[in-house]
Amino acid sequence: MGFNLKNIISIKDFSKGDIEYILKLAEEMEPIARSQEKSSILSGSILGMLFYEASTRTRLSFETAMKRLGGSTVGFAEAGTSSAVKGENLTDTVRIVGEYTDAIVIRHNMEGTARYVSEMVDVPVINAGDGAGQHPTQTLLDLYTMKRLLGDIEELHVALIGDLKYGRTVHSLSYALAMFGARMSFVSPPELKMPKEVLHDLSAAGVNVQETEDIRDVLNYADVLYVTRIQKERFPDPQEYLKIKGAYTIDSQLLKGSEAIVMHPLPRVDEISHDVDNTPYGKYFQQAFYGVPVRMALLKSIIR
Amino acid sequence: MGFNLKNIISIKDFSKGDIEYILKLAEEMEPIARSQEKSSILSGSILGMLFYEASTRTRLSFETAMKRLGGSTVGFAEAGTSSAVKGENLTDTVRIVGEYTDAIVIRHNMEGTARYVSEMVDVPVINAGDGAGQHPTQTLLDLYTMKRLLGDIEELHVALIGDLKYGRTVHSLSYALAMFGARMSFVSPPELKMPKEVLHDLSAAGVNVQETEDIRDVLNYADVLYVTRIQKERFPDPQEYLKIKGAYTIDSQLLKGSEAIVMHPLPRVDEISHDVDNTPYGKYFQQAFYGVPVRMALLKSIIR
Amino acid sequence: MGFNLKNIISIKDFSKGDIEYILKLAEEMEPIARSQEKSSILSGSILGMLFYEASTRTRLSFETAMKRLGGSTVGFAEAGTSSAVKGENLTDTVRIVGEYTDAIVIRHNMEGTARYVSEMVDVPVINAGDGAGQHPTQTLLDLYTMKRLLGDIEELHVALIGDLKYGRTVHSLSYALAMFGARMSFVSPPELKMPKEVLHDLSAAGVNVQETEDIRDVLNYADVLYVTRIQKERFPDPQEYLKIKGAYTIDSQLLKGSEAIVMHPLPRVDEISHDVDNTPYGKYFQQAFYGVPVRMALLKSIIR
Repeated sequence: MGFNLKNIISIKDFSKGDIEYILKLAEEMEPIARSQEKSSILSGSILGMLFYEASTRTRLSFETAMKRLGGSTVGFAEAGTSSAVKGENLTDTVRIVGEYTDAIVIRHNMEGTARYVSEMVDVPVINAGDGAGQHPTQTLLDLYTMKRLLGDIEELHVALIGDLKYGRTVHSLSYALAMFGARMSFVSPPELKMPKEVLHDLSAAGVNVQETEDIRDVLNYADVLYVTRIQKERFPDPQEYLKIKGAYTIDSQLLKGSEAIVMHPLPRVDEISHDVDNTPYGKYFQQAFYGVPVRMALLKSIIR
Repeated sequence: MGFNLKNIISIKDFSKGDIEYILKLAEEMEPIARSQEKSSILSGSILGMLFYEASTRTRLSFETAMKRLGGSTVGFAEAGTSSAVKGENLTDTVRIVGEYTDAIVIRHNMEGTARYVSEMVDVPVINAGDGAGQHPTQTLLDLYTMKRLLGDIEELHVALIGDLKYGRTVHSLSYALAMFGARMSFVSPPELKMPKEVLHDLSAAGVNVQETEDIRDVLNYADVLYVTRIQKERFPDPQEYLKIKGAYTIDSQLLKGSEAIVMHPLPRVDEISHDVDNTPYGKYFQQAFYGVPVRMALLKSIIR
Repeated sequence: MGFNLKNIISIKDFSKGDIEYILKLAEEMEPIARSQEKSSILSGSILGMLFYEASTRTRLSFETAMKRLGGSTVGFAEAGTSSAVKGENLTDTVRIVGEYTDAIVIRHNMEGTARYVSEMVDVPVINAGDGAGQHPTQTLLDLYTMKRLLGDIEELHVALIGDLKYGRTVHSLSYALAMFGARMSFVSPPELKMPKEVLHDLSAAGVNVQETEDIRDVLNYADVLYVTRIQKERFPDPQEYLKIKGAYTIDSQLLKGSEAIVMHPLPRVDEISHDVDNTPYGKYFQQAFYGVPVRMALLKSIIR
């Protein structure tokens, strides 16, 4: 009944039991994350933070998690301040940092980097996003947010909205939701539909999903509207982009009467209007907070 | 008799009692700031450091203050290493960091930013300088330096020297000195005189100030020469700038016979000669040190 | 029998007794560096990290050392995030940081900077590399690596290989090895031979060294192959560079039958093949680790 993963690379490495273990532990961590209790369980421990790609939220969330537990961090916030600029290769850098620290968090723009790094060092490795690849701690905090705000994930209907083709976040999340048997709706423009492979995997797992192009189709019964950004670069025609963007923007007018909560992995650009921020619908800042107890649970579990 | 400010945005939000409270508490903090005593009163607490504009002194001073008290910091030292470069807006960034941390220190080049941020987040916010706006912790450390080195602020005669028109530091300081009833002289070239509004406010507060263009006029009776930088950009004519700059440069020759101490918010360029650094006149490095206990006092007071 | 150096500027400031003191203390620090034991001997202490030149390994190694001992760090990882960009001079910056902290680690591209800084501030100063100058903590960790992996330094035969002309690391190391009476061989292309002054100093110290251009000459009896990078910029003719580079590349084929260990100050480029990394020969990552306990020993010794 413990947690046996050494590395946190992909949500696909997690069993349902592993996920439940982390979500339960995260709940125990919350008072510490909220500064209501103090902890020193990781005092003396050092987390190596190798952010080859800048990211405020993810980096500060991990640092906060480590420091709330009494631990420390060393590392760099972008490749520029590291020897990377002197031409040192990734392998040497991570092996050295692996010698200094008790665990490594890595973010890199190249898919597969975190897995590769985990094979090069002795210490545990956490993937904080590798390009088009995985970002498992995002998925875990998404699940935790749903559980904390709405209860049993098994009972939920989650609508994934926006760019479902390129968005790594929604792929991982849909696999995880499938493990819990949650119902899902996929809402996207035709150009950005969920890839066939994902649909196939979900179907093989016995999950029925509904696809639609219109947000209004899901407003009445979705418990969660999980919104992602639609990027201009996906559209050769700027006019087409503007039209699509407009149709997938969530504002408080649209939400009127719905009972769903609105989540977003952030950063957002225009896809959620600021007039949603302070309504009971908007939960994306709380979602960001929940990243801290979830990452505390992971750090506590893998650093020995 | 406690300290009731939630945020530290402008020195104008402080009553004289608030200022006295912080100056007294800073004195109690000094042994910890000097590493003669240890403290863990803020252990487990996290301070968010959002420096949209780089600043060594102010940033390191806050970090030192937080860490001397057992706390930790997370954040960024310039906008480049944050998601700001990805186009995330300030509001979203500060709301997220507000979810992670127990207080936020922000430095930004746009006036009013700190006040705005304090309205967006639940945690206390400290203004570490917002462009042409306020920099209240500088004013508090200036007052603390005078009190520690010279005693009762009420009894002092302070000469503010240099760019009194654009220098935000001297505006805030003059308001604060007025609260204590200190005497003031304003020494500047005609182009850079103290703004009429400030003079008016001081006069309304019952404070008489003397204005002059010649430093020599104040050397005999000033207790403090508070020097600020005159920036080349203020003068259309480079020749004019050079002439002015020369007339407002303090060196040890000029100081001979004076009993004043020389203060400066730093960084300086040429306005104080390096030959003053190791004389009994030059107190600007000690002044920088006093920033640490003052910021410790503020952090202790607002983080609960 | 204590350790009386205030500053760590050059290995030439160390007596043999000083070096032995640090190497012995480093051994006591190892369980803490390996996270097997916790320490709080430097809790409340602050180390100022002034990296005017970026360096992952050295910076993270010092930060790790300080944090493993319960201390904290403040500073900057490259000049860009400091007031240096605003034109603040080095002297003012270090004097201010000297007011905040309990010790300063400085890396700068100009030779002599660390010594100069140590004369400007009251706190101890550690040189983390000043351009073509000294990098004493590298020498100490090199010695420590030899002692830990091979035993008495006095008994060793160390081959220094590569760029012996410009490589500051090998100059310092050769002086230190001479203090211990270790035997040395210098292996380099004719253009990059050890400078006459160094040879003269070693000879005056009663040390006999052997010079050769061929690595094969030392493979049979060297205990340590200490490899350094040969930089392209040293050769006007790119063809000549490529020829030389090939002749001074260490791979596992070359090492077959040798009993030497391979060390390198890192970062490496091509001079050691990656096929050596996981052989018993390759000890450069372990060497990097040993930087942590050595720097812990230094920090513990100079911060009071």
